[in-house]
Amino acid sequence: MADQARLQEAIKAQGEVVRNLKAEKASKAQIDEEVARLLQLKAQLDGDDGKQTFVLKTPKGTRDYNPKQMAIREKVFNTIFNCFKRHGAETIDTPVFELKETLTGKYGEDSKLIYDLKDQGGELLSLRYDLTVPFARYLAMNKITNIKRYHIAKVYRRDNPAMTRGRYREFYQCDFDIAGQYDPMIPDAECLKIVHEILSELELGDFRIKVNDRRILDGMFAVCGVPDEKFRTVCSTVDKLDKLPWEEVKNEMVKEKGLPEEVADQIGGYVSLQGGMDLVERLLEDPKLSKSSDAVAGLKDIKQLFVYLQLFRITDKVAFDLSLARGLDYYTGVIYEAILTQAGVPQTQDPQNGPGVEEASVSVGSIAGGGRYDGLVGMFDPKGRKVPCVGVSIGIERIFSIMEQKAETSAEKVRTTETQVMVASAQKNLLEERLKLTAELWDAGVKAEVMYKKNPKLLSQLQHCEDTGIPLVAILGEQELKDGVVKLRNVTTREELNIPRDSLIEEIKKRTADC
Amino acid sequence: MADQARLQEAIKAQGEVVRNLKAEKASKAQIDEEVARLLQLKAQLDGDDGKQTFVLKTPKGTRDYNPKQMAIREKVFNTIFNCFKRHGAETIDTPVFELKETLTGKYGEDSKLIYDLKDQGGELLSLRYDLTVPFARYLAMNKITNIKRYHIAKVYRRDNPAMTRGRYREFYQCDFDIAGQYDPMIPDAECLKIVHEILSELELGDFRIKVNDRRILDGMFAVCGVPDEKFRTVCSTVDKLDKLPWEEVKNEMVKEKGLPEEVADQIGGYVSLQGGMDLVERLLEDPKLSKSSDAVAGLKDIKQLFVYLQLFRITDKVAFDLSLARGLDYYTGVIYEAILTQAGVPQTQDPQNGPGVEEASVSVGSIAGGGRYDGLVGMFDPKGRKVPCVGVSIGIERIFSIMEQKAETSAEKVRTTETQVMVASAQKNLLEERLKLTAELWDAGVKAEVMYKKNPKLLSQLQHCEDTGIPLVAILGEQELKDGVVKLRNVTTREELNIPRDSLIEEIKKRTADC
Repeated sequence: MADQARLQEAIKAQGEVVRNLKAEKASKAQIDEEVARLLQLKAQLDGDDGKQTFVLKTPKGTRDYNPKQMAIREKVFNTIFNCFKRHGAETIDTPVFELKETLTGKYGEDSKLIYDLKDQGGELLSLRYDLTVPFARYLAMNKITNIKRYHIAKVYRRDNPAMTRGRYREFYQCDFDIAGQYDPMIPDAECLKIVHEILSELELGDFRIKVNDRRILDGMFAVCGVPDEKFRTVCSTVDKLDKLPWEEVKNEMVKEKGLPEEVADQIGGYVSLQGGMDLVERLLEDPKLSKSSDAVAGLKDIKQLFVYLQLFRITDKVAFDLSLARGLDYYTGVIYEAILTQAGVPQTQDPQNGPGVEEASVSVGSIAGGGRYDGLVGMFDPKGRKVPCVGVSIGIERIFSIMEQKAETSAEKVRTTETQVMVASAQKNLLEERLKLTAELWDAGVKAEVMYKKNPKLLSQLQHCEDTGIPLVAILGEQELKDGVVKLRNVTTREELNIPRDSLIEEIKKRTADC
Repeated sequence: MADQARLQEAIKAQGEVVRNLKAEKASKAQIDEEVARLLQLKAQLDGDDGKQTFVLKTPKGTRDYNPKQMAIREKVFNTIFNCFKRHGAETIDTPVFELKETLTGKYGEDSKLIYDLKDQGGELLSLRYDLTVPFARYLAMNKITNIKRYHIAKVYRRDNPAMTRGRYREFYQCDFDIAGQYDPMIPDAECLKIVHEILSELELGDFRIKVNDRRILDGMFAVCGVPDEKFRTVCSTVDKLDKLPWEEVKNEMVKEKGLPEEVADQIGGYVSLQGGMDLVERLLEDPKLSKSSDAVAGLKDIKQLFVYLQLFRITDKVAFDLSLARGLDYYTGVIYEAILTQAGVPQTQDPQNGPGVEEASVSVGSIAGGGRYDGLVGMFDPKGRKVPCVGVSIGIERIFSIMEQKAETSAEKVRTTETQVMVASAQKNLLEERLKLTAELWDAGVKAEVMYKKNPKLLSQLQHCEDTGIPLVAILGEQELKDGVVKLRNVTTREELNIPRDSLIEEIKKRTADC
């Protein structure tokens, strides 16, 4: 414990330090640091002398995960990891920040959302905005021409947070990508299979996967009369169709992007189309679209893709949708996006939103997306050598939101520990015996807890088991010690049985084999 | 594929955009962005037109993890996770950055190593420097008064990197902490038990855990005549004893910290002491030290600690060492640090350093450390309410370095995937059949790969299995399809056996049960 008188002394001395620095006109940073130290010393004094003035919060758009949320997160991650591993993927990791110039010019209009680090001397750095650009940088830097990898990590966007809908400034991405020169559409089809597997396994409700191709969009823009240099910006506008009605999107095209109204109307005719193989066939015959070699190449690939998706038996969930555009600049071929469609999937995380739920029969937004980006690695290679890539990113935060809400309404309790047994005692002065037994259990690989009290009440030890879901209690008493046994209690049934000490470990392992 | 003529057009148009912005004296950020876009367009041109000028690297002091490193990392993490879970810990997560003021005044002289984010409007943010301060902030913010939690995440320090020795600017910390008002030294002893378990399980070689107490240091400083306000700064100097000889440390005390030489010499007498319970007893009788109530309180706790460590049967590795100081300001009681002592543990990651290895019989530096910090949570609580805490942080990067080097020299190959079977074919035109079977395997939970080629050579399919350690190949051919069988090949023994298609999944699972 800090000695109050000594603390008072230290506060006096530190006050002196601060006064001197101010007198010497020292740097603000230096003064701030010493002032903080002074406040800190004051805070150590008992009483209210050291009242804090700062706000106790996490930065805007971020959150902590509590143990219950972590338990849910671990479960979701395991499903996703297992799927990626089932498909033979390796994993890599990259730093949370990159050289600023690595990110520059990759994200189009979204670049303004990149977090920069302060220039503290040395390199200019930015927090990663996604995992795709660092992946491309990694491939180019290590001259890797083929790899199937997954990467699960946090990314950073200075966006307007909407945390109740799972939109944060710091959030996880789960990416799976296949790099390499292969026969067309086979890796692309595997990416869609992965989305299908993960969304099915997580049981989030019904979903649909929209598919399109950037070359079809480009061809469509060209035949509708959009000037070449406006392709990307008009593409960004089309991308808003999942959130805005056509009239507003058209408005943006005409008023903001400067397209003639009849051009916008022609685009409107195309982007309302969706279907399957039949639509692909029809568009291949479309008198206008078939004039664009880009569009035809894209349509032929989509057709091939559907053949593979049929083999994978997932076409029931996949739709060819000409309104799908995807915001990012780097896509060059097939693009896709998965949405949850089920009525009753709540649009917000707010547990009080009961009445609104019924109406949420519309799309609740994208839950996974990706596509082919054959040019990105070449942007990093000194000689511009290309490595074709296709990948998918799972929107894990929305999944967490849904799973958390499911857990809220479910009767089943989420355990946040895996403890198998609590080492307890009903009598006093048995702390040392409890510690000894606990250490024996730990050393045998048993997950065990013991209360950090000399003489805890049996009731509070049992209560802890009830609260946290520990299934067994190993109870020590004078009699048990004398008899060389331990009383093993089942927390749920309250059954108790004396177990010989030397078969205790085996017995615990047997009884908790399914934990 | 991008159409070259269209690309030329787009480059021309983009050049215009840049010129106009410059003419309009637009903001540098805006111009930079458009220039980058121009370069990016140029890079898409074939040939050397778009030569990159930027450096292809990760930021100073950071690294990527390749799949092999990730496989090792996963193994180490699992050992550590399992230990933490065995001890009944929950886990939490916090954002990678905190409000700048949350970190201010917590790290003493090390504060200058904190990474700040650029002020882009809004809050001032810093990257987390450790996991302890965010943990304390979390407890205060959520008014949690007891929890046993672990947290494994990256932290950031603008230190001089020494990457060959596992010292990075971005690195993992694995923290285990126990918060709550408990009987003395029980949670503290569990932290040491955890260090012992983890270092033993990882088989890194012999180790020792040094233990001391901040109150013993403070008491020692007081009785040696160090002025109160210099306790922390002299403590930082003592902390260098594991890297510098006493003479240099003394020099810093006298020349830089302004201690009289005889004061430094008295400190020198104490900090050379190390031992076990015997030393504790001796110091409790020390005529000078026993005058300090702080020192006596610390010594009594160390004595109690050793009693529990005996019950945990780990005293063989633990030494009471008065030279142990730990750099951070926030410790208030017991402190500890684990070092690897084994001769032959290489000091660098450099695989070429053969001859140097023999000499590395000295300490290779700290591999885990921690202590009690009873005041930190109170610094965040508006009313200064304290939550006593004790914890330990595992220095995982050093462990990775050692494990990587072990893997280098080991004959055993590190697998980076878990694939159980490769679906292959020796004949042409069987892609569709391969894809169909692969999807069946995935759907049954089998980890399977298939080559993304229409007609891959059997040899290259087998070679891929050899390279990546896939144990089985399921070979399809016209004859097998007709007979309703699959030829299952053991990659190592080259044995082949026809398996009826409907028992293939079962057979694969049986044969790879230990994978």
